[in-house]
Amino acid sequence: MSDLDRSRAQRLLNERGLDALVLTQPESFSYATGLPAGVPAMWRRAGGATALVPADAGARIGAVVGELNADVLARRAPEIDIRTHPLWIDLVDISGIDTAGLDPAALVTEAYRRENGGEAVFPPRPTTFSASGAFAVLGELLRERGLARARIGIDLEFMPAADFATLRRALPDIDWVDASEVVRRLRAIKSARELDCVRRACALADAGFHALTAGIRLGSTPQDMTRLWRGGVAVAASARGEAGLTGMWDYMSVGSDPWSGGGSVVPGAVLKADVGCIVEGYNSDTARSYVFGEPDPIARDVHAALEDAFEAGLAAIRPGVAMREVFEVTAGAMRAAGYPGYRRGHYGHSIGASVGSEEWPFFAADSDVILEPGMTLAFETPFYGKGIGALTIEDSLLVTDTGIEVFNALPRGLVRLG
Amino acid sequence: MSDLDRSRAQRLLNERGLDALVLTQPESFSYATGLPAGVPAMWRRAGGATALVPADAGARIGAVVGELNADVLARRAPEIDIRTHPLWIDLVDISGIDTAGLDPAALVTEAYRRENGGEAVFPPRPTTFSASGAFAVLGELLRERGLARARIGIDLEFMPAADFATLRRALPDIDWVDASEVVRRLRAIKSARELDCVRRACALADAGFHALTAGIRLGSTPQDMTRLWRGGVAVAASARGEAGLTGMWDYMSVGSDPWSGGGSVVPGAVLKADVGCIVEGYNSDTARSYVFGEPDPIARDVHAALEDAFEAGLAAIRPGVAMREVFEVTAGAMRAAGYPGYRRGHYGHSIGASVGSEEWPFFAADSDVILEPGMTLAFETPFYGKGIGALTIEDSLLVTDTGIEVFNALPRGLVRLG
Repeated sequence: MSDLDRSRAQRLLNERGLDALVLTQPESFSYATGLPAGVPAMWRRAGGATALVPADAGARIGAVVGELNADVLARRAPEIDIRTHPLWIDLVDISGIDTAGLDPAALVTEAYRRENGGEAVFPPRPTTFSASGAFAVLGELLRERGLARARIGIDLEFMPAADFATLRRALPDIDWVDASEVVRRLRAIKSARELDCVRRACALADAGFHALTAGIRLGSTPQDMTRLWRGGVAVAASARGEAGLTGMWDYMSVGSDPWSGGGSVVPGAVLKADVGCIVEGYNSDTARSYVFGEPDPIARDVHAALEDAFEAGLAAIRPGVAMREVFEVTAGAMRAAGYPGYRRGHYGHSIGASVGSEEWPFFAADSDVILEPGMTLAFETPFYGKGIGALTIEDSLLVTDTGIEVFNALPRGLVRLG
Repeated sequence: MSDLDRSRAQRLLNERGLDALVLTQPESFSYATGLPAGVPAMWRRAGGATALVPADAGARIGAVVGELNADVLARRAPEIDIRTHPLWIDLVDISGIDTAGLDPAALVTEAYRRENGGEAVFPPRPTTFSASGAFAVLGELLRERGLARARIGIDLEFMPAADFATLRRALPDIDWVDASEVVRRLRAIKSARELDCVRRACALADAGFHALTAGIRLGSTPQDMTRLWRGGVAVAASARGEAGLTGMWDYMSVGSDPWSGGGSVVPGAVLKADVGCIVEGYNSDTARSYVFGEPDPIARDVHAALEDAFEAGLAAIRPGVAMREVFEVTAGAMRAAGYPGYRRGHYGHSIGASVGSEEWPFFAADSDVILEPGMTLAFETPFYGKGIGALTIEDSLLVTDTGIEVFNALPRGLVRLG
């Protein structure tokens, strides 16, 4: 099912004078159609799977997909207007072929001939797929919808320049406009299904943190942290029957040189885990720091300042607030604590299922984005000091009608291990 | 260390009248520089990490990277001319600061001030990174190299159209030419290090096949196949101390509807495993089909034809042969076996560490690419039949000076399980 809010899309497209939105990024295709982009998406080129979202919220969403399993997709999403383009992969259906007296080769050839409209001369397949061919199919769909000379938004923050040139050659009468910003705005507010994915991802990540903190010993390395955290996530996923876990990522550090990749636990060592689980493509994003034994006074003081700044910033997050206000509260708290040199480009970001774990919008100094219910964000105060270590607090959260709901349930202080 | 053959690059660039190559795709950046593209690569936008490869093989390769850990990169690759652009991430180094009489906040602030050239007014950081800023740094590098008005190849099959517009605005005096084809040609021939990665990936995949075939039972599902194969790979990786395994992928099928995603093993069921291990980013690609018990006569006949076609095609692969000739031998063998309807867009492809498991060039009907020593390819004869199942043979191999070296050591017949 599509996760896209058609009435919101209609408003955003109308405001920008756009008749429709064409989406070529695999993640955006799936967002708009509820369907996998399929095998031709492997190259992250445009044309493999394309979604058409008319501005008119009453008009059906269209999709141009590889023909290979289009019948499966059509059964799964009858509400989508599906068109196909040929792929490189051969597929034949022998069901219903009368097998009487036919040897295997003759039977299979009869099935191929049936699919070929009875013809015995079989057309060749493309090496992979033809983007210009797929765009021509999109063009037919646009003509049927009265959009053959329309002003159409397209995702140029994804689309390779070479493919955009192909698109313009294939459909020269369309007025193409970069609408990446519309896509970002739509995706920043999550559907109930998307929210459920993020929640499940956060709960798994938390389970991993418990396994991580229980397993740290003198001599533990960042690789040990990865193993412990991932092991805890895997156990929790198995216990919950979580079939949607499609991946995990982690940035672990041990010791006083946080971007070196090395280090092992000695008394007083600072440890940092910045991690995410991916459920049905949706990322969580959570971070915590720990100290093994007694902390160094500098690490303790910096972490206390970060914790206060985190709580101050978190308290400012609610609907109607501009994201730059949250930035200023957080940065101001660090300045007031005696750390005017500490400067982040952002104190957090949207999370979801696009590319990378950090999505637009950001808690940044110049962000005029107003927080709205349904936004799913990570809020963070990361500090990296050579000679100190990585000190970070990060939670994932939902903006609700009245405030926020935090998805993580981990202590925010500098927890002592060992 | 760079995997790029500078003299080959010089020849290809000179032939096309190009003065240099600028690479913005994260995988191509790492290929040219031997360095990770780093955190700004998470969005797969251009500008986060950019490589400059002058046509003159004697001129140093340049790199514009995020400043966060540029010192680590410079120590790792002193041969690369590294420039930096600011990121959103804060980092301070307190080493060598005189701590006498300073409280933690004052000490850390002193370290920030030292990094800021003694100034107490600290410039803000960008929200993420500035592509136009990074391109301006690239422009300085080009000017120093006498390339301020040069004709430069760029990877427009990757670069988002919005970023290419930013690049053209930032450096309007450069004559930018799409050189994606040059990048593809360079990457198609592997360095010794790259080859080693592919070999290790193939050996791990083979180990997974042994675990898979040993574990199949009546009732096994595609999910069971995934678990068995991945388990076998993990055990082998652990036994070999393989630290470079960064991922795995698999397309499993059970039964007579190969693209349905479902099915479970019954007597006579066809099973297919099409899988890859990823070692240091490099993919293997191997596939086999199995039958549980006695095969259906159609599956047996189709597989026998595929096996003959595979052996015929494989025997044609050697240096100096055009890839279309291998296609024609393979397709001709299937026609001769009585399967004229069977048509693939390609019978295999290059493998490596780009995007997706299938890379250019392809064993395709129109490919005039001549096979050369050092090419690392997957050769395959996949058949998908509804009412039959998925029947596939695929091996990874290297083109040598005299012929080929096959990396997999699995039987190619329709092996019976159970």
